[in-house]
Amino acid sequence: MKSYSIKELLTKQPVGDSVEVNGWVKTFRSNRFIALNDGSTIHNLQCVVDFENADEALLKQVTTGAALKISGTLVESQGKGQTVEIQATAIFVHGTADPETYPIQPKKHSLEFLREKAHLRVRTNTFSAVMRVRSTLSFAIHSYFQQNGFYYMHAPIITGSDAEGAGEMFRVSTLDAKKPPVDENGEVDFTEDFFGKETNLTVSGQLEAETYAMALGKVYTFGPTFRAENSNTSRHLAEFWMIEPEVAFNDLAANMDLAEDFIKWIIQYVLDHCKDDLEFLEGRLSDEEKTKPQNERSEMTLLEKLKFVVENNFKRVSYTEAIDILRNSNPNKKKKFQYLIEEWGADLQSEHERYLVEKHFKCPVILFDYPANIKAFYMRLNEDGKTVRAMDVLFPGIGEIVGGSQREERLDVLQQKIKALDIDEKELWWYLDLRRFGTAVHSGFGLGFERMVQFVTGMGNIRDVIPYPRTPQNAEF
Amino acid sequence: MKSYSIKELLTKQPVGDSVEVNGWVKTFRSNRFIALNDGSTIHNLQCVVDFENADEALLKQVTTGAALKISGTLVESQGKGQTVEIQATAIFVHGTADPETYPIQPKKHSLEFLREKAHLRVRTNTFSAVMRVRSTLSFAIHSYFQQNGFYYMHAPIITGSDAEGAGEMFRVSTLDAKKPPVDENGEVDFTEDFFGKETNLTVSGQLEAETYAMALGKVYTFGPTFRAENSNTSRHLAEFWMIEPEVAFNDLAANMDLAEDFIKWIIQYVLDHCKDDLEFLEGRLSDEEKTKPQNERSEMTLLEKLKFVVENNFKRVSYTEAIDILRNSNPNKKKKFQYLIEEWGADLQSEHERYLVEKHFKCPVILFDYPANIKAFYMRLNEDGKTVRAMDVLFPGIGEIVGGSQREERLDVLQQKIKALDIDEKELWWYLDLRRFGTAVHSGFGLGFERMVQFVTGMGNIRDVIPYPRTPQNAEF
Repeated sequence: MKSYSIKELLTKQPVGDSVEVNGWVKTFRSNRFIALNDGSTIHNLQCVVDFENADEALLKQVTTGAALKISGTLVESQGKGQTVEIQATAIFVHGTADPETYPIQPKKHSLEFLREKAHLRVRTNTFSAVMRVRSTLSFAIHSYFQQNGFYYMHAPIITGSDAEGAGEMFRVSTLDAKKPPVDENGEVDFTEDFFGKETNLTVSGQLEAETYAMALGKVYTFGPTFRAENSNTSRHLAEFWMIEPEVAFNDLAANMDLAEDFIKWIIQYVLDHCKDDLEFLEGRLSDEEKTKPQNERSEMTLLEKLKFVVENNFKRVSYTEAIDILRNSNPNKKKKFQYLIEEWGADLQSEHERYLVEKHFKCPVILFDYPANIKAFYMRLNEDGKTVRAMDVLFPGIGEIVGGSQREERLDVLQQKIKALDIDEKELWWYLDLRRFGTAVHSGFGLGFERMVQFVTGMGNIRDVIPYPRTPQNAEF
Repeated sequence: MKSYSIKELLTKQPVGDSVEVNGWVKTFRSNRFIALNDGSTIHNLQCVVDFENADEALLKQVTTGAALKISGTLVESQGKGQTVEIQATAIFVHGTADPETYPIQPKKHSLEFLREKAHLRVRTNTFSAVMRVRSTLSFAIHSYFQQNGFYYMHAPIITGSDAEGAGEMFRVSTLDAKKPPVDENGEVDFTEDFFGKETNLTVSGQLEAETYAMALGKVYTFGPTFRAENSNTSRHLAEFWMIEPEVAFNDLAANMDLAEDFIKWIIQYVLDHCKDDLEFLEGRLSDEEKTKPQNERSEMTLLEKLKFVVENNFKRVSYTEAIDILRNSNPNKKKKFQYLIEEWGADLQSEHERYLVEKHFKCPVILFDYPANIKAFYMRLNEDGKTVRAMDVLFPGIGEIVGGSQREERLDVLQQKIKALDIDEKELWWYLDLRRFGTAVHSGFGLGFERMVQFVTGMGNIRDVIPYPRTPQNAEF
């Protein structure tokens, strides 16, 4: 007897064959119909029990969450909702799930409740769909880059380099937490630590990716990054995954082309490969939308939003143009923005980005050529001396989903910027070496993976798109 | 004029076309022949300079390591060593590389020297080949699992769970390093820390992967893991990448089948996709072997070793059989082993594993059914009450490359083991929940990614197969 996954059975439909499946009980109706799921697909397999000849004690064990092996014949289904079903001839109970204590019962649980049960929530339709899409999206990302001649580069997670300054960092140490060794000045003596210096968790693999791009040409990272920011929002995690492509000889225009092509390709890949899960998630989102006041509901369904991104050009707008648009916008004139846009140089807030994307252009937007003083030191200074070749991709509902730039390839300009920021040049000796030896125009960007999973699945809280979210006060599991 | 990567040019060979390439100078001979490399392939592109009409000052900038854009016509090559070359019509220097200071000159550098220049070593043939193979091997791993119905699961990196006890851990903290807050007992008050408790870097994603396997059926992790062990060897890193598949309803035999099929498939994938790099690395290894005494040289070349693994069955041997073989072996009888094998229950050392693989069976070996007391608490106890369903895959030259087991699915047995080990059950409440609700037979294993890259590339030191190795006293870059 051949063992199948439910996805295989529903795809191949070997009607008439004796088959075996393993899975968990979703529901058991009328002492007769077991809806079995094994995680391979959102769909359950209906297993019909010959209850008149079945062992009553065994049937008592068939409750939601129990793990079963069911053998029988695959037949065309007479009932609605499925094309095939198993006429069960034997049931083996791997493990029971006491209905009194098993938390994942066949009813609606709040996302907040399920967050407390993160080890079990993936047994629900919503989370299993999200996590399958997350997996497929990961593979889409790797596939895109590998097909296009990029090499995957594992940037270091523990870093002794604290020069990027992209945010608060987590210290990594094996020193005694209570009584660390101290040096002659009474400061903690990190030369005694595991790495012989103070080390932190990385906030970005970009600088290291640049070293590889300047040898392999086209590279990308895909790894965890960390921010020790005390942000308890639906958009922030202390531990999240980031994708950072970096390409030698690409200027900012080529970088924008890459970002747009990449994003469209991976979303199309998910549309092609996760149809069932996306349909389920579309229904979930539209149910959620119905609980909102009419004027706050999205005009598009989940699939419409995804297709819209794939099918439309991203609007490319310089920061300077965007400031003009915002300054003359209704919410600015009527003082509806929390932060009014008065002059060139202002840092854009989420409300401004959303206005541009959702109200003004009504499509994804790439803003470029930002003022130098609101962007990072490594970005290429334009000939105007006041803007840098930075770009942000802005998405409806999400805001900034990609941030990137052409990098400053000129040694002297980079050294001046580092000096102006009071960064010790010695900290970046290896980064500056790239400008000393065979320097060239190069560009890259970072995509926050969980933000993209949120966009693709329609989940509103970033904690619900990663298996075990790490946030302030929470590192359970 | 179309811009090409060198890999594309050498593959498509659009002879007669005007083309443009960017890359770095490997060598410049006779003021005429530039060997250009852009990292897309191990092969250089020969660019022939019309030196009689060239700007002399420009040609002076064409030194090893300089970044150039070269335009010209692709023609069939008259010279040896290449089929096509560019007749250069224009050369643009992106960036120079002063021969007096650029460390990567066209001569043999020691691996030790290059480790100090980890940001530049990837510009050498050896390291660019290793890192391209590493990238392809990563993608092979994702491809294998995705094609076989596995879902990629990102296990958490920061963990509040310290129950696995697989080794020394790195503490992650934002508390003041010098004066951490203390509680009323004078101990460090981790409730004040970022996550409200003491947290560490993960040593394994297995326990979390199990939670996902018990919902999605077949999952795998591929992420960084950490060991704060003070091991300064050619086999150990403090930060390394690990792959951990976990499969619901798989017993130990199915787990061994999976490991063998997986390993063979990914090696075959690399053989199919990295031919040029592997041939280069084979040559490098055989040069290295020639510096060794005759009796220490490997009998097989790199490619022979890889094909051998793909084409032969892994020998499956129980621990008990292995002990018999070792006890009666010549090195044991002649007291050549450092640790003599006297009785059942002995923990096998690297010398014993290598004897079994390299001398006795002369093929990869899977040892299984180890004594319970030398293996982890979560492994399935056999009916004999003294062995567990553990397995290790042993490779020539490398030793243990995979460690795995069928997991203990019985709540009561697992609870007893946890108690015997003095682990607080509360620490593992969620792990035990898997045995309370819908438990089932399940299995998985861990593959140390860098060990596999070492095997595939023939590199002897694990520091040379990861971009920025983290080892005691070393977290540079």
